[in-house]
Amino acid sequence: MMLPRAAALVGLILFAVLPARAENVTSFTLDNGMDVVVIEDHRAPVVVHMVWYRVGAADEPPGHSGIAHFLEHLMFKGTDKFPAGSVSEIVEANGGSDNAFTSYDYTAYFQRVAADRLELMMELEADRMNNLTLSEKDVVTERNVILEERNQRVENDPAALFAEQRSAAQYLNHPYGIPIIGWRSEIAELSREDALSFYRTYYAPNNAVLVVAGDVKPDAVRALARKHYGPLAPSAALPVRTRPQEPPQSAERRLRFSDPRVAQPYVMRTYLAPERDPGAQETAAALTYLAELLGGGTTSVLAQKLQFDSKQALYTSAFYDGNALDDTTFGLVVVPAPGVSLQQAEDALDSALADFLKDGVNMERFDRVRTQIRAADIYARDNVQTSAHRYGAALAMGLRVEDVRGWPEVLDRVTPADVMAAARDLFERRRSVTGWLMKGDAPEVTQ
Amino acid sequence: MMLPRAAALVGLILFAVLPARAENVTSFTLDNGMDVVVIEDHRAPVVVHMVWYRVGAADEPPGHSGIAHFLEHLMFKGTDKFPAGSVSEIVEANGGSDNAFTSYDYTAYFQRVAADRLELMMELEADRMNNLTLSEKDVVTERNVILEERNQRVENDPAALFAEQRSAAQYLNHPYGIPIIGWRSEIAELSREDALSFYRTYYAPNNAVLVVAGDVKPDAVRALARKHYGPLAPSAALPVRTRPQEPPQSAERRLRFSDPRVAQPYVMRTYLAPERDPGAQETAAALTYLAELLGGGTTSVLAQKLQFDSKQALYTSAFYDGNALDDTTFGLVVVPAPGVSLQQAEDALDSALADFLKDGVNMERFDRVRTQIRAADIYARDNVQTSAHRYGAALAMGLRVEDVRGWPEVLDRVTPADVMAAARDLFERRRSVTGWLMKGDAPEVTQ
Repeated sequence: MMLPRAAALVGLILFAVLPARAENVTSFTLDNGMDVVVIEDHRAPVVVHMVWYRVGAADEPPGHSGIAHFLEHLMFKGTDKFPAGSVSEIVEANGGSDNAFTSYDYTAYFQRVAADRLELMMELEADRMNNLTLSEKDVVTERNVILEERNQRVENDPAALFAEQRSAAQYLNHPYGIPIIGWRSEIAELSREDALSFYRTYYAPNNAVLVVAGDVKPDAVRALARKHYGPLAPSAALPVRTRPQEPPQSAERRLRFSDPRVAQPYVMRTYLAPERDPGAQETAAALTYLAELLGGGTTSVLAQKLQFDSKQALYTSAFYDGNALDDTTFGLVVVPAPGVSLQQAEDALDSALADFLKDGVNMERFDRVRTQIRAADIYARDNVQTSAHRYGAALAMGLRVEDVRGWPEVLDRVTPADVMAAARDLFERRRSVTGWLMKGDAPEVTQ
Repeated sequence: MMLPRAAALVGLILFAVLPARAENVTSFTLDNGMDVVVIEDHRAPVVVHMVWYRVGAADEPPGHSGIAHFLEHLMFKGTDKFPAGSVSEIVEANGGSDNAFTSYDYTAYFQRVAADRLELMMELEADRMNNLTLSEKDVVTERNVILEERNQRVENDPAALFAEQRSAAQYLNHPYGIPIIGWRSEIAELSREDALSFYRTYYAPNNAVLVVAGDVKPDAVRALARKHYGPLAPSAALPVRTRPQEPPQSAERRLRFSDPRVAQPYVMRTYLAPERDPGAQETAAALTYLAELLGGGTTSVLAQKLQFDSKQALYTSAFYDGNALDDTTFGLVVVPAPGVSLQQAEDALDSALADFLKDGVNMERFDRVRTQIRAADIYARDNVQTSAHRYGAALAMGLRVEDVRGWPEVLDRVTPADVMAAARDLFERRRSVTGWLMKGDAPEVTQ
């Protein structure tokens, strides 16, 4: 326990001593509609180059779940100019690293390289935005890779299977109820044509955000972006980004998932929760506090009541991430202590929530959480890659540069009354799913 | 109680005396791909004329739920040749009746008229298959009609709201989890363009089944169908009919729905169940028996145990309908007697199911159910409209004429062992949703 504690302490001291470093952010849009964000940070001669597409798993056509993630893999199959594997090879040969990721709301590709290699990264990324070549063999091979990835990450992990079933029960209509990696049976049917159709529909400069962060000047980035991304034609047929929204959730849901591989049973409850919206981030900010107050570490409400006072829980947690295009979830976890049943653990959770709603926020705890949130923000801004990620993700989810800039201030303005109001709106059982992960019979496979 | 009992008795006597009337069915396909089924019945000079489209609510684009049903309404707005309301007026003026209905798997339009008016019906129906005219005003007016229909049928009926939430929890991925009438918020956004796009995509002779039943000769129907439907061009871009299928359902789900308007609480459990498939109707036949054995009337297993023996229930029921393109549900209902809690009612249900799985089928009960199923089939075949409906629905759901013809025999071949095997496969809690409808606080409206 010493190391993290010490580190946190250093953080607080730094925070108390140093003013928050302002990010030096410039943004503009190319004539073809591609948004560009430049974050200057000249402390090291490196640059992070990211292209974020405003498309993710929640934009997939029904019955083709996993295609966004599949395409992310296939983007490394190369073009005529830069054949398969060459992006990663070139990046590595230039001493850099690269990666890609897919979420519900975006798909992103990034490289971290020496600052003088930025142009090469743009050349690579602009080329594969338009010129991806895919053989039938590539598709079959990569589909097997992804099925194996699903095996390892989901089928072999009861907690992941449990999470999939819970999400599906949480969302009655919205595609956030479908796993990002895709349902296995649907992954198995994904075709080259599915991938190319998704690529042609969504991979276009007017659906992309370029983020360049590090030892660069905005004018130089603008010139390079114009040279490499500027010539790409925008898509004239970009779909309007609306997903099926949730109907009123009027019945509390519960589910039980049993698996012989479960080592530690637990209770998890999620509530449908609002997300950050452009110009309206206040509720999300209050919920960010609420999650920290209830479940953020050993001084939180749940830890104090359930782990230390009543000793009914081994571990408690609360989580919320407002970074989403549509309604997201707020979650609570209780891992019962030996001899405590899941029902007792859940009852203890409900009792703690009821007390919290009745008693309100302890000011000392609130101040500590505010300090933690401020410190986390300062660390994030101090890391060029994290900072680039923040802007890219936010813009890809429909937020604006000013929303990202304003977020620390919105967080700073949150009051205990805001938190309690948000909590009262949130904790409506009709919009919740309570899941029990249990050790038990093997799940029957129905396919 | 006297009347239905007497009627049932007459049925059994009739059945014992008369052989089943064979249906005189002819089927063929027009050059443009339109399937035609003719059922001759010359006992009365009437004809039933039906057009079934192989499209329903489960084929809707995501986020546009209700468009199939909305279009069904809009089909009465008329064409240049037959303006708004004229179909129904002409039918009525000719002494007939007409109607239309939308299910998950089909949308159908039918008229019942004097046999010599058949050609006029074809003229009307062929015309509106291609030439529907819709004004913006029609769309706005009819959308309000449908929102009001939803108010009356769903929003004002807690059992219907409960059913919607249960279905959404039953299906993790398949559109059967979305209400046929549509989510209110999505109905409110349906546009003229949505309706016309759905119409142009799916309303075409190669996506339709014509059923003509009554006092007609196949050759005459063929000549008329060629004359009126024959000239319609088939759609070259008919989508392949595949919906997102269910992933493995591996976590038992439960939900509670409370509403102050609930007069009588009850427990309802549904299990995911297989449907009738072309050439493979045996399991569906066994499940048809199972539903009758468990919940069909006062001599059923659940009625005997829960209503008469333990007196814990006021009413019990089991339901199953194998008429679906994709996996359907098998349901059980227990309405507890006064003083019996929903938990006790559910426990009694589970105990009855466990006994049934242990004890097997009582032969006397099985024979009675077989007789009832035979009798129901004979009545259905004896009614020209019911018979036409059977063929139309089956063909629109992907079954073939021979599947409909063979269904009574498949039902007749079911053995007690088949029923028990089907029951053992069916009653897997991981694929079930158990819902409690309770009297309680008003559901919060989240929109």
